[in-house]
Amino acid sequence: MSGVVNRKKLYEIIFESDTRAGRNFDIALLVAIVLSILVVMLESVELYRLRHTTLLHNAEWFFTFLFTIEYLLRLYSVQKPLAYATSRFGVIDLLAILPNYLSLFFPGLQFLLVIRALRLLRVFRIFKMGHFLTEGNTITTALYASRRKITVFILFILLLVTVIGSILYVVESPYNENFNSIPISIYWAIVTITTVGYGDISPVTDFGRLLAAMVMLLGYAVLAVPTGIVSSEMMAARKEQHLVTTQTCPHCIRQGHDADAAFCKYCGGEIN
Amino acid sequence: MSGVVNRKKLYEIIFESDTRAGRNFDIALLVAIVLSILVVMLESVELYRLRHTTLLHNAEWFFTFLFTIEYLLRLYSVQKPLAYATSRFGVIDLLAILPNYLSLFFPGLQFLLVIRALRLLRVFRIFKMGHFLTEGNTITTALYASRRKITVFILFILLLVTVIGSILYVVESPYNENFNSIPISIYWAIVTITTVGYGDISPVTDFGRLLAAMVMLLGYAVLAVPTGIVSSEMMAARKEQHLVTTQTCPHCIRQGHDADAAFCKYCGGEIN
Amino acid sequence: MSGVVNRKKLYEIIFESDTRAGRNFDIALLVAIVLSILVVMLESVELYRLRHTTLLHNAEWFFTFLFTIEYLLRLYSVQKPLAYATSRFGVIDLLAILPNYLSLFFPGLQFLLVIRALRLLRVFRIFKMGHFLTEGNTITTALYASRRKITVFILFILLLVTVIGSILYVVESPYNENFNSIPISIYWAIVTITTVGYGDISPVTDFGRLLAAMVMLLGYAVLAVPTGIVSSEMMAARKEQHLVTTQTCPHCIRQGHDADAAFCKYCGGEIN
Amino acid sequence: MSGVVNRKKLYEIIFESDTRAGRNFDIALLVAIVLSILVVMLESVELYRLRHTTLLHNAEWFFTFLFTIEYLLRLYSVQKPLAYATSRFGVIDLLAILPNYLSLFFPGLQFLLVIRALRLLRVFRIFKMGHFLTEGNTITTALYASRRKITVFILFILLLVTVIGSILYVVESPYNENFNSIPISIYWAIVTITTVGYGDISPVTDFGRLLAAMVMLLGYAVLAVPTGIVSSEMMAARKEQHLVTTQTCPHCIRQGHDADAAFCKYCGGEIN
Repeated sequence: MSGVVNRKKLYEIIFESDTRAGRNFDIALLVAIVLSILVVMLESVELYRLRHTTLLHNAEWFFTFLFTIEYLLRLYSVQKPLAYATSRFGVIDLLAILPNYLSLFFPGLQFLLVIRALRLLRVFRIFKMGHFLTEGNTITTALYASRRKITVFILFILLLVTVIGSILYVVESPYNENFNSIPISIYWAIVTITTVGYGDISPVTDFGRLLAAMVMLLGYAVLAVPTGIVSSEMMAARKEQHLVTTQTCPHCIRQGHDADAAFCKYCGGEIN
Repeated sequence: MSGVVNRKKLYEIIFESDTRAGRNFDIALLVAIVLSILVVMLESVELYRLRHTTLLHNAEWFFTFLFTIEYLLRLYSVQKPLAYATSRFGVIDLLAILPNYLSLFFPGLQFLLVIRALRLLRVFRIFKMGHFLTEGNTITTALYASRRKITVFILFILLLVTVIGSILYVVESPYNENFNSIPISIYWAIVTITTVGYGDISPVTDFGRLLAAMVMLLGYAVLAVPTGIVSSEMMAARKEQHLVTTQTCPHCIRQGHDADAAFCKYCGGEIN
Repeated sequence: MSGVVNRKKLYEIIFESDTRAGRNFDIALLVAIVLSILVVMLESVELYRLRHTTLLHNAEWFFTFLFTIEYLLRLYSVQKPLAYATSRFGVIDLLAILPNYLSLFFPGLQFLLVIRALRLLRVFRIFKMGHFLTEGNTITTALYASRRKITVFILFILLLVTVIGSILYVVESPYNENFNSIPISIYWAIVTITTVGYGDISPVTDFGRLLAAMVMLLGYAVLAVPTGIVSSEMMAARKEQHLVTTQTCPHCIRQGHDADAAFCKYCGGEIN
Repeated sequence: MSGVVNRKKLYEIIFESDTRAGRNFDIALLVAIVLSILVVMLESVELYRLRHTTLLHNAEWFFTFLFTIEYLLRLYSVQKPLAYATSRFGVIDLLAILPNYLSLFFPGLQFLLVIRALRLLRVFRIFKMGHFLTEGNTITTALYASRRKITVFILFILLLVTVIGSILYVVESPYNENFNSIPISIYWAIVTITTVGYGDISPVTDFGRLLAAMVMLLGYAVLAVPTGIVSSEMMAARKEQHLVTTQTCPHCIRQGHDADAAFCKYCGGEIN
């Protein structure tokens, strides 16, 4: 019996943030996540790695053990452990500890611990920043509504850069050792069409530059497409939200009233 | 007689994907295209080219012969061979085999075989991804509707970069060997105004940098134009899709009625 | 008397393109402009300059004399020479010949002859590409309507890059010889905030890179502003063009009819 | 008594620009600001710093003393000195003189004097460029309305570049000395996803380049989000401006009525 109560209590503390204990736990968790990320980042900087080897190494394992215990407690306290383990947050929670254990076999993987930054997404839930969540949802909705258009667009871009990259490879490779294979040329095409333009690989022949200029102007026009897609979706999302009601005035039978209207704007009659 | 039946049967298998045989053929074709592209890409990487010279060379010719036979069968089975040969897919199908034959005379051209990636566009038809096609059509419609605006815009940009490039050539060429001709300077202007910015060519004089900074700010404002064009077209396309029904007036057989129309706006006849 | 007739005839040939002679003159002019630009471009390429010195030099002067005569004839044939000389096309026509004469005193200026590319803008008038002109006008209208917003925006960006550039100069100059003055640092800030990013100047200190990263994220958000301005103007321009009429049906007194409606879509009564 | 009058008179001259004296003061101030910025910029250029050491140094202190006196007069003449000192313009006015005094202790800080460029923002008020202010307000309103969406977006981008940067660090650091710590890799991720692309740090391994290409395509799609946010807000701002009148209901004193409203939609009272 007490075990059940403990599990329920634990659940409230770990998963919810309505109680004082739950809230404190969540805030402590956020602090621990931020600190552990700082530790991993510092360890990646040679200067600090050499100076504070043991300290950073121990801190890393300390946080990993902490999050491991937390992960096990979550599994224990939740009613459906499998549902949690396969949920989005469950997977992130696992990914946040796994790299350190894997680093025992594959040194270097511990730096992937930074993935635990994704755990910070809880911050919205904890501080009940509902407004921000709503805004985030609007963005997500717009992106979700345009997922097919964007998929078609990305596929089209991939075909385009494959063809452009191959043509540039044929034109440039005899004179430019940077274009030494088709995959590299495709990489160049992506760097160019997205207007990133590192400059580590760039055409040197006249014909190659002419083609590159055409690719850039094309990319200029093409860049407008995803923006157009998302813009139009976001405005559609906005409109639905703010839409005037379809309510009809019972006195003059006219429509077009705002959602907050209590009286008909045409005849002054009371509506609903 | 049997020849005719065979041609019809062949047509169903090769061109359509309703029957089991047609579907299997199309999927096998997609796999063959992807494999052949991988072969060409691997051959372009020196490491693999040197190690597996014969294997890659043979694989390349194997796929080319395969696609050549397929192309001839398409010509044979279709009712109007010329119409197919001059259609978009017909031209792509030919371009997908031609480079290898040309490479016998001009070595290096076989890498253009990657153009056969465009054959993958069939994937939409094969898997009946109608939804994706519709989305693709919306994009295409928006781009088509804005073709004139974009043409005017590209012409304007070309005049602009010609003038800017020449001015920068006059300013920079005495001090900067990278600006050693007007065409190169125009190339620089395109690289800059599209915000690609490789950095292989960049101004070094104070006046040149001042002009370059003005070009960039101009490009910043100008970049907004194609996006504005496509955005407004896409929203117009969205609206027409949602507002105008596809209903035809039974009296005058004309379309374009609003969703709330009870009478034809052209002839006054009752609709639906 | 005959002088007057000649002037009128000349005017028709040179300025208009309705008559056969006028049309032929205009087309010959376009060809001459394109050829003369090619000559100037070729002369700027060292290879051709050294090989065909005399030929290119003579061709350049030939076209300059041709355009000078044309300019004088324009001045002679037009009724108000001053109005023409100060009009947009008049100024461009003068700028198209001036650099060559100035190059006698300041060698190198002849390359500015490329400015005569702007004379090609006549192409729209000559070929009566009304549709394109309309499209161009829509763009121009949208840009004109947003001129104040864009001016405010550019002023804001100039203040921003001045402040950012100075801060980066203070941070970077002791460790990075590329940031060797505030104007150069402002140039860097413009290159960065417009996302051109040549990479010839880039921060090397940790703090400088942190600031640069913030500038980039800022630029990311700021880039959205001009696009938003132009997009919203272009859509407003579109709407006004396509607006439904404000016509009211005389039978049922309801509005919302399309511009091409001959009958009321609600009651079927004839309108206007 | 005369002290009070003087303070009031001073206030009119310094803070307002309705009187002739006030206007002259403001214009003189603008000129002094521009000149002092030029002095600081010139001093940052080694060529001029070495040649005119004393002149530039003296000019710098001259302007600093001038602005210090002005600042003290502002504090003296205003009714609520604290309110002014903590207002936006008050802080900028202080920041415009502070760096020079601090440079006595920390040489080099005097270049931050360029921050006084922000004082030029007064130009709008002085010349009563109301139209421009309105336009600026529209932009500000749109940005303000989308502040939550943009905050969520920036937080999302920060998480994204942290994760991407760490993965690239693990992949690239063994082969590429430029990716020598996670913070540097995050810097690279920001440079890439914002499409700035300096090229001072870029991946060299095949897998790193594959990941980088995916980041670029992602950035391509992601770039559309802030633009979509601001575009839709600006259009909403436009619409509200054109549609909602500023009319107040004489009965319930509430605003927000449509242009076609004859009766108040809140209380049903007749309006106008």
